Amino acid sequence: MIKTANGVWKLTLGEPEQFTPERFRENAIKIEEIERLPVSQKLPFKETSISWEKTKRGITITLPMKTDEDIYGFGLQLQSVNHAGRRRYIKVNSDPAANTGEGHAPVPFYVSSAGYGLFVNTFRYTTFLMGTNTGRGTSSHMTAENKIHEEFSEAALYALKRAKEERSVIIDIPAADGVELYLFEGSIPEVVQRYNLFSGGGCVPPMWGLGNWYRVYGGSDENDVKAFGKQFREEQIPISVLGLEPGWHSHSYSCTYKWSYLFPNHQEMIDELTAAGYRFNLWEHLYVYPMAPFYQELMDVSGDYEVWNGLVPDFAMEKACRVFEDYHRENFVKKGISGFKLDECDNSDYNPSNWAFPDSTQFPSGMDGEQMHMAIGVLYQNLIQRIYKQENARTYSQVRSSGALAAPLPFVLYSDLYNHKQFIKGVVSAGFSGLLWCPEVRDCANGDDLLRRLQTVVFSAHSLINSWRIPMAPWKQTDIKKNLAKEEMETADYYTAECRKLFELRMQLLPYLYSAFVEYSKTGKPPIRSLVLDYPDDLAVRMIEDQYLFGDSLLVCPLTYEEGTSRKIYLPEGSWYNFFTGEKLEGGREHTVSAAYNEIPVFAKDGAVIPLAKPVESVSRDTVFEMEIRTFGEAEGSFCLYEDDFETFAWETEQNRVVIEKKADSEPVITREGNGPVRYCF
Amino acid sequence: MIKTANGVWKLTLGEPEQFTPERFRENAIKIEEIERLPVSQKLPFKETSISWEKTKRGITITLPMKTDEDIYGFGLQLQSVNHAGRRRYIKVNSDPAANTGEGHAPVPFYVSSAGYGLFVNTFRYTTFLMGTNTGRGTSSHMTAENKIHEEFSEAALYALKRAKEERSVIIDIPAADGVELYLFEGSIPEVVQRYNLFSGGGCVPPMWGLGNWYRVYGGSDENDVKAFGKQFREEQIPISVLGLEPGWHSHSYSCTYKWSYLFPNHQEMIDELTAAGYRFNLWEHLYVYPMAPFYQELMDVSGDYEVWNGLVPDFAMEKACRVFEDYHRENFVKKGISGFKLDECDNSDYNPSNWAFPDSTQFPSGMDGEQMHMAIGVLYQNLIQRIYKQENARTYSQVRSSGALAAPLPFVLYSDLYNHKQFIKGVVSAGFSGLLWCPEVRDCANGDDLLRRLQTVVFSAHSLINSWRIPMAPWKQTDIKKNLAKEEMETADYYTAECRKLFELRMQLLPYLYSAFVEYSKTGKPPIRSLVLDYPDDLAVRMIEDQYLFGDSLLVCPLTYEEGTSRKIYLPEGSWYNFFTGEKLEGGREHTVSAAYNEIPVFAKDGAVIPLAKPVESVSRDTVFEMEIRTFGEAEGSFCLYEDDFETFAWETEQNRVVIEKKADSEPVITREGNGPVRYCF
Repeated sequence: MIKTANGVWKLTLGEPEQFTPERFRENAIKIEEIERLPVSQKLPFKETSISWEKTKRGITITLPMKTDEDIYGFGLQLQSVNHAGRRRYIKVNSDPAANTGEGHAPVPFYVSSAGYGLFVNTFRYTTFLMGTNTGRGTSSHMTAENKIHEEFSEAALYALKRAKEERSVIIDIPAADGVELYLFEGSIPEVVQRYNLFSGGGCVPPMWGLGNWYRVYGGSDENDVKAFGKQFREEQIPISVLGLEPGWHSHSYSCTYKWSYLFPNHQEMIDELTAAGYRFNLWEHLYVYPMAPFYQELMDVSGDYEVWNGLVPDFAMEKACRVFEDYHRENFVKKGISGFKLDECDNSDYNPSNWAFPDSTQFPSGMDGEQMHMAIGVLYQNLIQRIYKQENARTYSQVRSSGALAAPLPFVLYSDLYNHKQFIKGVVSAGFSGLLWCPEVRDCANGDDLLRRLQTVVFSAHSLINSWRIPMAPWKQTDIKKNLAKEEMETADYYTAECRKLFELRMQLLPYLYSAFVEYSKTGKPPIRSLVLDYPDDLAVRMIEDQYLFGDSLLVCPLTYEEGTSRKIYLPEGSWYNFFTGEKLEGGREHTVSAAYNEIPVFAKDGAVIPLAKPVESVSRDTVFEMEIRTFGEAEGSFCLYEDDFETFAWETEQNRVVIEKKADSEPVITREGNGPVRYCF
Repeated sequence: MIKTANGVWKLTLGEPEQFTPERFRENAIKIEEIERLPVSQKLPFKETSISWEKTKRGITITLPMKTDEDIYGFGLQLQSVNHAGRRRYIKVNSDPAANTGEGHAPVPFYVSSAGYGLFVNTFRYTTFLMGTNTGRGTSSHMTAENKIHEEFSEAALYALKRAKEERSVIIDIPAADGVELYLFEGSIPEVVQRYNLFSGGGCVPPMWGLGNWYRVYGGSDENDVKAFGKQFREEQIPISVLGLEPGWHSHSYSCTYKWSYLFPNHQEMIDELTAAGYRFNLWEHLYVYPMAPFYQELMDVSGDYEVWNGLVPDFAMEKACRVFEDYHRENFVKKGISGFKLDECDNSDYNPSNWAFPDSTQFPSGMDGEQMHMAIGVLYQNLIQRIYKQENARTYSQVRSSGALAAPLPFVLYSDLYNHKQFIKGVVSAGFSGLLWCPEVRDCANGDDLLRRLQTVVFSAHSLINSWRIPMAPWKQTDIKKNLAKEEMETADYYTAECRKLFELRMQLLPYLYSAFVEYSKTGKPPIRSLVLDYPDDLAVRMIEDQYLFGDSLLVCPLTYEEGTSRKIYLPEGSWYNFFTGEKLEGGREHTVSAAYNEIPVFAKDGAVIPLAKPVESVSRDTVFEMEIRTFGEAEGSFCLYEDDFETFAWETEQNRVVIEKKADSEPVITREGNGPVRYCF
């Protein structure tokens, strides 16, 4: 094993493949930041206990596994969070119907509670057997017992127990002749931080990206969009970003990248709404219809199968990137577009409409379809990120597929296939592998369901209302048919007011959340994360899939509409304070808490210092936030706010640390240091 | 291409693998019977339009596909029957949650309405893209249209239509350096018959196997089993076979193959119940617990991973087969056991209890785990079949996994994971690939649900009530808790009587069904089959998943309890007659038919001649069936009954053809020819 960084080891087995996640990385390992992280645990096994072999099927790697190991990671997982005892099939799949490990952004990385993590540097559809089997060649005859179980279910349970006595991790990589493994040492949070810093550190979105987003009705023309912009300001709904469909998918669902007849004066619309403080996000595919202006240029740098009658550009080729980049830079980024939403890039296995290119597709770079399916989401993100870096503007964008080493990429994953409970699981799981997930508000059963979903959304990485199916905002009408008929519901005023409160709450939390993202960049600690990452030694949190930390100080316990108005929560050791009422609850145990439909249980740690901003309607380069400091509990505490221009890459060199310290029995003390602009006033 | 038989062509690509379904075949191709089949269509493409390539991933084969092709086959498929436009992943999987093609018995064989079938002779987890994609290198720019669709769903539909203009079949076989393809010419039924005869022809179960089966409560001891036997006779419930769990899985769920303490005098039980006309089927795994008498002998001929602390014998090795066979022959087959039920042999991906051996398992024969998962069900069937052949006794047994070339094996597939609607789809789909499927009655919501399920079961290959969870028959109590408490439901008498009627109906149909199986053996025509196989040119039947043919003359339209008491049916061209009432319905169109919960819509063809037996309580070697002939409609018709000893392999040389001819306006004329025993009296 070769040391790559402090607590990061590289093991090369056989002849690794040419195309790997590392080959396409555009962000260097944050060596110095990794150096600063503790290594509280060394690898729990020796290099010699990792075995591997090359077979006709590819390569198989075997690692030891203890009976009590808990396993997290594997990218965005919407069906389960702890993967011990499970088989994980790391294959990108837009319709993961069963709990197989497949999904929009599966990642060949896991972290074990035994004190290590493993990243397999491959684009192959890799299978991980996480303790489903005992070790190779185990011979039960040495320990056979003549115990008869009267119920066969008892015997099966016994087999399970027996099988647990000795387990193994078995990793099957098809087609490969070799592979590089990266082993990360440390406790669960240390491993996750190390993996994220190895990836290049977490992304830092522009401040506006953390505001509230609204994707407008798909049938909107430019006047409708302008009307939305006007209405939100009139009704004091603080929306920062408008998401649009420019109609360029209306030929054959692959894209022409030309504004449709619905937007004859789109630049006027963009300029007018930009002046009103809005940002724009444009929906797109990467499947290029023949009428796209750059179609001909892509013909020799695309795969040999089409999708929806469009080319699939080979973004492993410099020329394909350049053509796509140049067009997007000149026509969109320079014209005031702040980001994109890349749809349908996540490989459908079950769709007969010529969606997914076959795994056997050949790309001119030499990649095959299997590798490209695993790579394409990240290759696209790299490409878009390059444009914005050149323009010295940060983006915050959406993408439906991602993969390994993606922490530095300011893209949020989404999909509408899931129920609210699964959306919450995604929020909990994504943070283990350097990913961000949006539990977007789309269809709601009724107004209270809308509130429940919006509560989760404002406490997520991406506060998004996706209303592409409805012409009026959902707080005016949740019934889709009535919404299409533009009939307001009787309770529209009530729900408008309640949603406004939640949007304003999000705007209050902006500086707090922004600082969590800067920490993500510097330390690899995800801004939104499972309790396991803060309480790795508390066994009671190991299976929790419906609570999470939002920044360092807040513990969020969302409810779904179906759950009603009370739920069980678990609070780790220590005192906790209701974020809204200040009510104190003792940790180290479960509680049943009540929350009306317009309330969400959120708890602050003892000693928490939470800076809140007076809500603004949108964030511009000049916005100065009027700050209020809220503290919780008796313990001493502090918070570090980061202050910079909030939208360019200047933050990397021009930034202030604004430290707020709360000592016992005295007002919080604020100290500012750095060379950045002043954007917070207290 | 090399001609293998009339209308059967073999194409060898590259270097085929050592282990294939053909290598393990124990039944010769029925060359002469294939010769007799017509070839109404030649292959719809030339050999040169089949392309293939070897890549790092394995091999990929591409065939042309027309826009209007319908595709059937791929083994037992419980989610859909027509696979055009679908991706099929041919991987054995006990929990196929989504419609991926995975399942208990996936088979790399399909038949196309274009006039051909294809069998890929491989055990690899092969992916078939059945027209999900257009051809390689298709360039849409030649035919791009500047048509804008105002709704994007319209654009997606357009893409679908466009994509339909040219499609391809893409077959991905991992790991292989080559493969043998078998192409079958002809219409859909001709291809299916040809494939079945290529496999060795359909199986001919013993007559008793076609009777009614009852699997007793899992907690039963030998006295309980005797009590069941006595009770069924007293209550005139015609049960032929009792299914038992001998308790040998009660150590660690893998098996000891020793009768447990519940059966101290099992031989007495067997002998006593055999004298009362019962047959015995014993439940087992093939995972061998250390306390099994033959464990030591298997140690060097088993895979290098255990399942439930038991060895996985390598049935590709002669020694492993011999050890397992010898033990089963001496201890069970020679002692009066008529068959086995092999459970849990179908690879669980989602089970943490050390169930499935990894795909990377190495077996001493040289097979790997992937190949063994695809082979193991058939290897076991071959082994059991060899024992019964040696003993000159036919078996009819159960197995939870099967595969290619399995038509000659007298085993029926089962699983309890599905709803009644899916059970029916399985009945329709299994027949396309030489498989038999049991829609077993297990859990029922209530008495009427029981009747609905039993109606499907008596019109299936296997009339089975599986009551392992309940100590009383379900017609006495459908509620599991109350059944365990031995509380009879108030309506027990009514449901007992209705179930008895259905069991008696099955016994009446025995000679009719037996003859359909003999035809299956001689012509490859499945006894229970989709309407597509009899009406290949009627486009209206191509998507029907809930009607099927039972023998040559009966069309069965089962209802589920959820559907209530009426359903839509489609009858092909011609006149049809209600099997129970004689009511005439015109074909070539849909009808809505009513059926109370104790009625099932079954229709006889015009001219049908259906011999019915007076129900007997069980079938012995001496049973003579008292026959009644029922005819339907005006048309002339005939039926061929086959008559032999009904239980040994003597039928292959000693059998009568009893032809019943119905001419207009005269009584049916019966002629008997052959050298078999007389078993039918008219």
